[in-house]
Amino acid sequence: MSGNSFGKNFRVTTFGESHGAGVGCVIEGVPAGLVFNADFIQEILNRRRPNANNPANTPRIEPDQFEVLSGVFNGKTEGTPIALLIRNTNQNSAAYDELKDVFRPGHADFSYECKYGKFRDYRGGGRSSGRETAGRVAAGALAQNLLLQKGVKITAYTIRAAGVGVSEKNLAVVEQNAMRAPDLAAASKMLEQIEKLRAEGNSCGGVVECVIDGVQPGVGEPVFDKLDARLAQAMLSIGAIKGIEFGDGFACVDSTGLQNNDQMHVDPATNLPVFDSNHCGGILGGLSNGNQIVFRVAVKPVPSIRLNQKTVKKSAGKENSFEDCDLVIQGRHDVCLCPRIVPVVEAMAALVLMDFYNEEK
Amino acid sequence: MSGNSFGKNFRVTTFGESHGAGVGCVIEGVPAGLVFNADFIQEILNRRRPNANNPANTPRIEPDQFEVLSGVFNGKTEGTPIALLIRNTNQNSAAYDELKDVFRPGHADFSYECKYGKFRDYRGGGRSSGRETAGRVAAGALAQNLLLQKGVKITAYTIRAAGVGVSEKNLAVVEQNAMRAPDLAAASKMLEQIEKLRAEGNSCGGVVECVIDGVQPGVGEPVFDKLDARLAQAMLSIGAIKGIEFGDGFACVDSTGLQNNDQMHVDPATNLPVFDSNHCGGILGGLSNGNQIVFRVAVKPVPSIRLNQKTVKKSAGKENSFEDCDLVIQGRHDVCLCPRIVPVVEAMAALVLMDFYNEEK
Amino acid sequence: MSGNSFGKNFRVTTFGESHGAGVGCVIEGVPAGLVFNADFIQEILNRRRPNANNPANTPRIEPDQFEVLSGVFNGKTEGTPIALLIRNTNQNSAAYDELKDVFRPGHADFSYECKYGKFRDYRGGGRSSGRETAGRVAAGALAQNLLLQKGVKITAYTIRAAGVGVSEKNLAVVEQNAMRAPDLAAASKMLEQIEKLRAEGNSCGGVVECVIDGVQPGVGEPVFDKLDARLAQAMLSIGAIKGIEFGDGFACVDSTGLQNNDQMHVDPATNLPVFDSNHCGGILGGLSNGNQIVFRVAVKPVPSIRLNQKTVKKSAGKENSFEDCDLVIQGRHDVCLCPRIVPVVEAMAALVLMDFYNEEK
Amino acid sequence: MSGNSFGKNFRVTTFGESHGAGVGCVIEGVPAGLVFNADFIQEILNRRRPNANNPANTPRIEPDQFEVLSGVFNGKTEGTPIALLIRNTNQNSAAYDELKDVFRPGHADFSYECKYGKFRDYRGGGRSSGRETAGRVAAGALAQNLLLQKGVKITAYTIRAAGVGVSEKNLAVVEQNAMRAPDLAAASKMLEQIEKLRAEGNSCGGVVECVIDGVQPGVGEPVFDKLDARLAQAMLSIGAIKGIEFGDGFACVDSTGLQNNDQMHVDPATNLPVFDSNHCGGILGGLSNGNQIVFRVAVKPVPSIRLNQKTVKKSAGKENSFEDCDLVIQGRHDVCLCPRIVPVVEAMAALVLMDFYNEEK
Repeated sequence: MSGNSFGKNFRVTTFGESHGAGVGCVIEGVPAGLVFNADFIQEILNRRRPNANNPANTPRIEPDQFEVLSGVFNGKTEGTPIALLIRNTNQNSAAYDELKDVFRPGHADFSYECKYGKFRDYRGGGRSSGRETAGRVAAGALAQNLLLQKGVKITAYTIRAAGVGVSEKNLAVVEQNAMRAPDLAAASKMLEQIEKLRAEGNSCGGVVECVIDGVQPGVGEPVFDKLDARLAQAMLSIGAIKGIEFGDGFACVDSTGLQNNDQMHVDPATNLPVFDSNHCGGILGGLSNGNQIVFRVAVKPVPSIRLNQKTVKKSAGKENSFEDCDLVIQGRHDVCLCPRIVPVVEAMAALVLMDFYNEEK
Repeated sequence: MSGNSFGKNFRVTTFGESHGAGVGCVIEGVPAGLVFNADFIQEILNRRRPNANNPANTPRIEPDQFEVLSGVFNGKTEGTPIALLIRNTNQNSAAYDELKDVFRPGHADFSYECKYGKFRDYRGGGRSSGRETAGRVAAGALAQNLLLQKGVKITAYTIRAAGVGVSEKNLAVVEQNAMRAPDLAAASKMLEQIEKLRAEGNSCGGVVECVIDGVQPGVGEPVFDKLDARLAQAMLSIGAIKGIEFGDGFACVDSTGLQNNDQMHVDPATNLPVFDSNHCGGILGGLSNGNQIVFRVAVKPVPSIRLNQKTVKKSAGKENSFEDCDLVIQGRHDVCLCPRIVPVVEAMAALVLMDFYNEEK
Repeated sequence: MSGNSFGKNFRVTTFGESHGAGVGCVIEGVPAGLVFNADFIQEILNRRRPNANNPANTPRIEPDQFEVLSGVFNGKTEGTPIALLIRNTNQNSAAYDELKDVFRPGHADFSYECKYGKFRDYRGGGRSSGRETAGRVAAGALAQNLLLQKGVKITAYTIRAAGVGVSEKNLAVVEQNAMRAPDLAAASKMLEQIEKLRAEGNSCGGVVECVIDGVQPGVGEPVFDKLDARLAQAMLSIGAIKGIEFGDGFACVDSTGLQNNDQMHVDPATNLPVFDSNHCGGILGGLSNGNQIVFRVAVKPVPSIRLNQKTVKKSAGKENSFEDCDLVIQGRHDVCLCPRIVPVVEAMAALVLMDFYNEEK
Repeated sequence: MSGNSFGKNFRVTTFGESHGAGVGCVIEGVPAGLVFNADFIQEILNRRRPNANNPANTPRIEPDQFEVLSGVFNGKTEGTPIALLIRNTNQNSAAYDELKDVFRPGHADFSYECKYGKFRDYRGGGRSSGRETAGRVAAGALAQNLLLQKGVKITAYTIRAAGVGVSEKNLAVVEQNAMRAPDLAAASKMLEQIEKLRAEGNSCGGVVECVIDGVQPGVGEPVFDKLDARLAQAMLSIGAIKGIEFGDGFACVDSTGLQNNDQMHVDPATNLPVFDSNHCGGILGGLSNGNQIVFRVAVKPVPSIRLNQKTVKKSAGKENSFEDCDLVIQGRHDVCLCPRIVPVVEAMAALVLMDFYNEEK
């Protein structure tokens, strides 16, 4: 259980560290004969990539061009594993030399040291780096492309950041603002706060919501692989995410059965059963119920900050010896992860759904 | 991916429906030569079982005695699969005849019908019944027993129900009140509300918190099988749970990096690194960090209510024909699931941890 | 990897020891709404069961009646896990007391002791007993029933035993003779030899061949899960089997490419490509090629014999101390496993095929 | 179940086609902090590579230099997935244009077409090419390196080819002759026959034996993942292999229980139980018994021959229309696969063992 693979019928294995040769993925379960839409995948990778003009992002430049190593022939999938490689190009590994022995607060440094010992790759977080998600996003983009052909559309967006929430959900404007928020006015306020935090050397968190349209009822499995259970695993496997809720989520706890149950009626247009409301977020008993699937994730503040923090480092030249130290993290870091996490949320949701769709066939 | 198994190194497969011969589990990955503590398992099964004197519970009586079918010899584990069977004894299947063609709001009836067609077992929810969790709790009890021997203790309790929150967390009183709440005064208020809701035929939800002590740092896997990701899957695989959050959870989204990062210092007593706070809930980068693991789950209101609801039923004698109907659910149902979900949360947390512990060895 | 499950899309987990409460299986991946043919399954279980009138068999009587614990409702499958239980009824565990500390030659006793320590169930081999295959045969019978509906027929039979080979392959007579051989005259000669061996207290081996008709071309996976690779794992997972070969098998090693290649032509009746010969046994590149699938397995002589053997036992009352001893195994044992292995070979082949068929859908 | 991964605890996923960008593998389950011995891996890859001076081999030149994409830092493993890439460099894809529509006898062309449709990569067999094994050998070399540190040594060699068997088993000479046979005189005779077959445009098969020393007793799992079952799957997953037998294998079928059982005695030197013989090939009940593990595989004649063969091709420009044709395969092909299969057999055996060793830890 090394935990580098996700899915059973549409299976993705990622590899790579932030400062090695590159990151990538192997995708199994793609049928033969499908058009391999390289432009679509590159476009989604570009959405994850930091944008130097975006105040929420790190000013690092990562071209993130992917190469197809296998599984595609004459522009079509072969039904064999598709391996994609994204080379690392803009690493400044030397910048991390001084972090070699320090446990950065809010990062995985200490827990990785406990698991892997002194062999962890301290450069940019190594395997725990957000850069690992480039492999997921490449695979997820392929999944999204296949899902669109089945009429399934996944859309994530920022609904809260730096203490500012949105007042409307106009999905048409999501890609028009640096926060990927569905409310241009709120996005401006978020960016104002973010500029202040950047100036201070501080950072912030937020909430990303994801809606999925077009999933027919009955997708999921009844016990341990409930659709919401798999989505929860998928989302919590993203570094900075600390919580997930479906439909009304934590708000439903103060509701009553009568309020929270989604009652039904026969739609006169189709003569099929439909729901009067969607408190459950489109999932009942672990299976989709035909309504829009809705969930929200909590994104924690970026842990890399330029403010002074108290922490611990390994004492030079001694085994198992530690000392207190002060730390001000230099380098180029995101201030708020929400806009860059949006495509990662979409990618992971796509991997979950393709896994179930591949099973159904 | 039929989704009836959980775990890789400590693997549990559950089987059974609420109104068939019984429910049970097969547990793989238990080493040979351990004492098989049947009393401990039965005691935990008894905690999940409804208690007729508990106003939050259904008045059904289910003895839930388990039988060992394999894997135990002379009171010791053999290292082979341990199969446990809990026979169904108090089913009143006839009571469900009138529900055969009705989709109960808030239940899995409609989505199951979409997945399995007319062959779903409508009696008591069949496989989607909460009764399925008896198999999980039996397996989880065995896991909890093994974890206790490693110094790992898992404790869940109700912190909110029927709109009433706890004011203190005194774990010593959790098993002394019908709500399994760590605050006797709050528990009384919860039960008052629950009695009112029962009288009305309505129901309520709540929040269950779980803390895990004694997990050494470094438990988990770095990418898709992060400790929090696996716990999230485990919890969302429990029928009524609609959300999960770790540490500060959704509250951290309005925090800053400086506030949210858990800074560190060297503990003078042990000369080892420790954290100054636990905003992250004991997990960083998907691995335990040595602090107490803390998470909360949102429990939705019980969907079976005695109040009139609008819903849809299949028209008698016609294929794919539906009609609107009114529904008042009769029978014996829980009003609030929190107290009975507490042992299920503990069981699922134990299955996740044993899976990682079995890997580490 | 406790190794008690087989298959991914049609997945069987077996449990049980020869002298515990019973043996059984949990079957996942059976679609909802299929007729559950209990008579068919019982009939195939009866073929595996020892027959007191068969000179090759043990005179033990095992009724091997199975009980359905879950997954079947109103005679139809529910799409949920089907758990089947076969209780042990005719165990004479006391007979094994004297074998508690002895390593029987040809049995798993010594290697199990090394793996599990002193906690192994010495009664009748425990988990390593041939009795474990009852669970596989029950699951395999269900698979065979489903495959027959797809036009796939699996037939195994004895082609050599006690040094006697068959001269013809008349499948019509296989179930008419105690050896399950496709040649009545050869079967008589085999049984003559077996009677002699029984009188001496000795035993013999043989070869079982299996043919599978009706598999369309293209079934299998290209690399590690080749159809022949999975069949090989399945067959070698049967206790007494020491080798497998497909098509011409070991004989092809002295052949040339020109002789061994199966050339092709267009069948004038169907205008589809067909093969001129079947040296490859119906599998090319790990995928079925539309020809009959043919393989043979080597069955070793029964290790439980009434003749004196030199072996080792654990010294009474001392840890890790061993001494030489003589052993004459008493009790009721098969002389030749071939006829009883025939239904196990068919069952395992059916599990392999259903796993691939469930994937294809 | 796309079948491109092997193993659970030491897991290898291969990717790549013979005429794409390259072939490679992702290896999961390698602990952190081990020396990554690149030279050892390259040396074993070189043994698989065709040797232009070897009359049994194709005269193609494939440098087979591998690149480490991830998982290694400062010459040590990181505990994260190790991705290795071997670029294709000497492909003459145009040579395959005329084979685009032809089903080559003895190859996977027809069964692949049935599975994947017209999208299969016809160039050099695509995914079914022997070139795919380069990824396995790279991963297996890493496994062999780790096993050697545990005292486990795997050695395979040719014992029969072109109708010539060996008379002695002198492992010291295996790497000194082009056949990798443990008998220099027999190797000369094999090569004589092979030169004749090459001149004729024909090919031949052979038998490869593998012995494994140093495996402690008790390695394996009791039911479906028996050590021999997993080795059988591993070996039959190699393209040209048509059979496997352990210990005395098919010869034991004419033996008796008394002859075939390996009796035991206490070794006076160690006071531990040892076996008097090794008819079983070092595996009993699916677990190693401490003796040398011995198995043999049947290697079929190379299917690519320069002699005229009758076969079928797809009619130009028509869907589902076929016609008879004659085929003389041009290009550079092996005459006998045995010497090049030797390192693949060793690699696959190493993957099986590491999977079990990683479990035991």
